[in-house]
Formats: sequence, structure tokens, C-alpha cells
Amino acid sequence: MRRDAPIFQPRDAGYAARVRASFERQRAMELIGARLLLVEPGFVEIELPYREDITQQHGYIHGGIVGMIADNAGGFAANSLVAAGASVLTVEYKLNLVAPAEGERLIARGEVIRPGRTLIVTRADVFAVKAERWNLCAVMQQTIMALPDKAERTA
Amino acid sequence: MRRDAPIFQPRDAGYAARVRASFERQRAMELIGARLLLVEPGFVEIELPYREDITQQHGYIHGGIVGMIADNAGGFAANSLVAAGASVLTVEYKLNLVAPAEGERLIARGEVIRPGRTLIVTRADVFAVKAERWNLCAVMQQTIMALPDKAERTA
Amino acid sequence: MRRDAPIFQPRDAGYAARVRASFERQRAMELIGARLLLVEPGFVEIELPYREDITQQHGYIHGGIVGMIADNAGGFAANSLVAAGASVLTVEYKLNLVAPAEGERLIARGEVIRPGRTLIVTRADVFAVKAERWNLCAVMQQTIMALPDKAERTA
Amino acid sequence: MRRDAPIFQPRDAGYAARVRASFERQRAMELIGARLLLVEPGFVEIELPYREDITQQHGYIHGGIVGMIADNAGGFAANSLVAAGASVLTVEYKLNLVAPAEGERLIARGEVIRPGRTLIVTRADVFAVKAERWNLCAVMQQTIMALPDKAERTA
Repeated sequence: MRRDAPIFQPRDAGYAARVRASFERQRAMELIGARLLLVEPGFVEIELPYREDITQQHGYIHGGIVGMIADNAGGFAANSLVAAGASVLTVEYKLNLVAPAEGERLIARGEVIRPGRTLIVTRADVFAVKAERWNLCAVMQQTIMALPDKAERTA
Repeated sequence: MRRDAPIFQPRDAGYAARVRASFERQRAMELIGARLLLVEPGFVEIELPYREDITQQHGYIHGGIVGMIADNAGGFAANSLVAAGASVLTVEYKLNLVAPAEGERLIARGEVIRPGRTLIVTRADVFAVKAERWNLCAVMQQTIMALPDKAERTA
Repeated sequence: MRRDAPIFQPRDAGYAARVRASFERQRAMELIGARLLLVEPGFVEIELPYREDITQQHGYIHGGIVGMIADNAGGFAANSLVAAGASVLTVEYKLNLVAPAEGERLIARGEVIRPGRTLIVTRADVFAVKAERWNLCAVMQQTIMALPDKAERTA
Repeated sequence: MRRDAPIFQPRDAGYAARVRASFERQRAMELIGARLLLVEPGFVEIELPYREDITQQHGYIHGGIVGMIADNAGGFAANSLVAAGASVLTVEYKLNLVAPAEGERLIARGEVIRPGRTLIVTRADVFAVKAERWNLCAVMQQTIMALPDKAERTA
């Protein structure tokens, strides 16, 4: 991650609770067992423990699952910067899988690169953690759209 | 899909059974309830019925889940063209989510665009089917790597 | 290209002249010697003759130049569908270079996949034409933004 | 850029001269007026002064030109890490244009994210410099292929 990244000022002081509530409403995150570790302005961390039912044919965590948490890490990083009452939508993302997702758990770090009014560009890095060694296993670049007056469904 | 696409000749006459067996070994596909509808040389179709536990915060199927089946549709399309005894790996993919994944089921169609010896380029289209109307909800472009002598794990 | 693609209805009857005028204002297209062959609703074709001063270190046309005409083919395809008085902007694109750009000329075909109000998703295929044989050399997927009331500069 | 990025050890002690010679052989870089500012292991910087003949219809530097130097910055960063006698090829890249390329010059910084034996993943950031203020205008993520025994053409 970019240690020299700009510090973003959230437009919604309640951003952390709002992002956490939005994450809770994603049934798909519950299905795979992902949880939101950290929410800061323009930055989030998602953790996914290894389970056999999320693997692919070589026994590693499925690349599509890696993509899910990378996509979400970027999306929630963007979400942390929009106004209260707004929501976000993934326009597109591009994911490189650079090493097998092998380990006890994955950590996805998403960060905002460019917070536009309508479009927010993010990047995410996903690490496979094995015996407390962090290995980069995927990198993502993403475009998010902010929807000014679109409320999320209530749980 | 490209009706004018080249017809590919499989290098492994048993490609269909091999691809189906590989799909069966992906526990993550079982978890989300996806199944392989069709396997042809350089072309596959994957179906995913709607379930509430694969949704995002707006109630549609999660974009990451859409990405999983798009990634897989491209990957298995590529897999159908490699030699017996070879396997494939996703190098990267780029996914545009163009409409909400809303409907009774999703259909992902993956096709090979360029079958290189080492790298295979594919595209996939994902449709949300609602009352038998097909709506394009995602498009993907992907790079797959062929691993000549890498066997998949046996179930 | 998708022979089964939907036929788009232009919102601006003068779309072809507008797109051609916009192309003429791109000095960079003049610099590399590209020209607009065809403009239809949601579809354009750009031609680029080989010249030694647009090559890379192996003597083929530079991948970045291939990207320029692919980007433009998608962008002008999108531009053909927006209202008179609107203009377009490339949000992002992803390009796979699948074969060397070797031949007498390149042809880039751009087509609209999904014409949203704000965002338009396109794809492009680039062919290297050598002794009248067409070889696919690049494939692109792109997001374009429509700017409703943003006029282009006058030449 | 990642200040905390790993320090890479070049496999070719003469990497800097080799990368510079390769850059010199790209006629397309000469055409647009780009020059290589800096070459370090896994990191390069390319500078492109503004000229009117590289602009698009709004008067900014053309997005395809921005893509050319971003692609090259990533590609030469990868090239700096391969063995003497090897060369590199762009497999694919994905570029987000996040602000107009407006200013006296552009600076593209490319860096290696993951140096695999066959595939090298890179990122690049492009800045538009106006009155010595640096504004991020594009971000790229890229896959490069190393060709072990493929010599480049001699000038």
C-alpha cells in the first residue's frame, strides 16, 4: 500500500458505521466467511479465513473468491468517502492473480486512488498469510460509481 | 457471442469429460450453486440460479459472484482447448458490470478469442435471465495460462 | 465482431458528421497517420497504415499505438450514440495484445456493447492486415463517459 | 508509488544501458518526443513534454498517448529485471484516465509489483505537471511476458 497516499477527509462523519452496516447487508460475504477488519477514510481491510468449500481444483482459494474480496475492498474504500445517504456501485475491475492463494487466511487491502464526484478509482492488494508470512497473491484496479441519493436496502 | 468466431479443434478428444471433472473439483462452484451447462471446443456455458445468500446490499447477485462465474466461464473455455494432462490458471481478468444481476438465474458464456501455446485470451458475457428475458449484466476479458504438465488434484 | 449485436438507434441524426469532425480535431491521430474508415450507429472502423516511425524495438507497430487506435475506435463508437452537443471521455480501457502488429496496415473495429446514459461500455478488435490476410492482433474492453453539455473545442 | 516496495536485485548488471538502448530503438517514442529519465531495478520514469500534435479534441494530451508512455513505463520497469539477452513483451494493460493530461509535461512512473519467471506484473502512475504541480492523471496495471532468448533488433 501507498504509505505516501493522500489522507482523505470523509464527507460523512459516520462513515465507519455506515460502511460496516453496508458490509453486513452483503449476504455473499457471510456465505464465504469474510469479515471487515478495518475502515479508515479511503482505506479498508477485509479478512477471509481459509475454508475447504471456497477452493478451486488445485486446493487453493478460488480466484473468483479472491476477486470478490478485492472488489469489495476497493468498493468499501470508495464507500467510506461518499456522503451519508449515498451508495456505491462497481463499474468495473481488473484483477491480476500473481501467486496461489495459499495459507490460513487472506487479507485484502483496498484504497482510494482518485476520489471523483461521480467516479472513484481504487486499487487493492490481496495477501495470502501462511504461518504469519504475508505473500502478495493478487492486485486489482477498479472504477466505482457514486450514487448520490440511492439508499441501500435495510437488512 | 461471436457467431463468426473461428471453430477450434480440441487437442484432447476427451476435453468435455476433462473440463467437467475439473469443474466438479471446484468446491467454490458447489458453494454458490453454479453448474456447467455446456462444453464445446473453446466455448462453455455456466448457469447460476438466484439464491438470497449470494446477494449484495441492494438484493442483486453480488458482483464478485458474477465475476466468479465469468472468470470460470473464460477459464473452462480455455481449458477445453489444452492437451490432456495440462491444466490452466487465470493470469488476470477485467470485468465490467453493466446492469444489476437481477433475475431467476445467471448464464455466463465464455469463449476463446486467441488460443496461444502459453497464453489463451478469452471473453465472457454474463446474462441475467428474468421471466425468460436475457439481459446482459457483465462482460469480461481475460488472460489464461496453460500449464503443460501440471495435473489437477484428484477429488 | 458481433454479427448478432443489437442495432442501435442514434439520438443525433447528424452523428456521422459529428464523429468525423471530432476525429479531425485529434491532432494525435494526424500525427500517427490514422483515418476513420466507417461510422455507423455504435460502430466505427479506423485504419492505420504502417510507417517505420510508429514501431517498437522489434520492428512491429508499437503496442501503445495499437492501444491508441483501439481506444479511439471504442470511444468514437460510443460518441456515435450520444446526443448532439454532448461529448465523450475515456474512463478506462483494457487491452490484450494477442499477436505482433505486423503488416501493411491495421484496422481497429470498435463497437458499443452497452449504451448507458452516463457510462457506455465498448469493445474493440484490432487486425493487422498483411497481403490482405487479416490477423487479430489486439482486443480491448472499455468504459466511456458521456458528458451531456460539454462541447468540443472548435478546430 | 510504493515507498515500501521491495528492492529488486537485477539479474543483468548492465540493465540500465540495455534498457536505454531498447528505448532508443522505439521509433514511436521518438515520434511523440518521450524520453527515459530514470532507470532503476524494477522502476523507470519517462518524461513527455507537451506538444500540440499529440493532443485530442479537447486540447489535452491524447489518452492513447498517455497509455503509450504508461505501457512503456511498466514494460521497461519489467525489462530492467530480466536477464541479459532476454527481452519483454506486453501481454495486456488496463489504464484508468483519472484527470485531463493538462500541463507542460507528463511523467510516467512504472514499477514492478511481481517479478515472475515468465510473467511480470507492473503498475504505473502518470502525472501531468503544470507549473511544477504534479497531478495524477492516469493509473495502469499491466502483465508483461519475459522472452528468455529473444534478442531485440539492432538499430
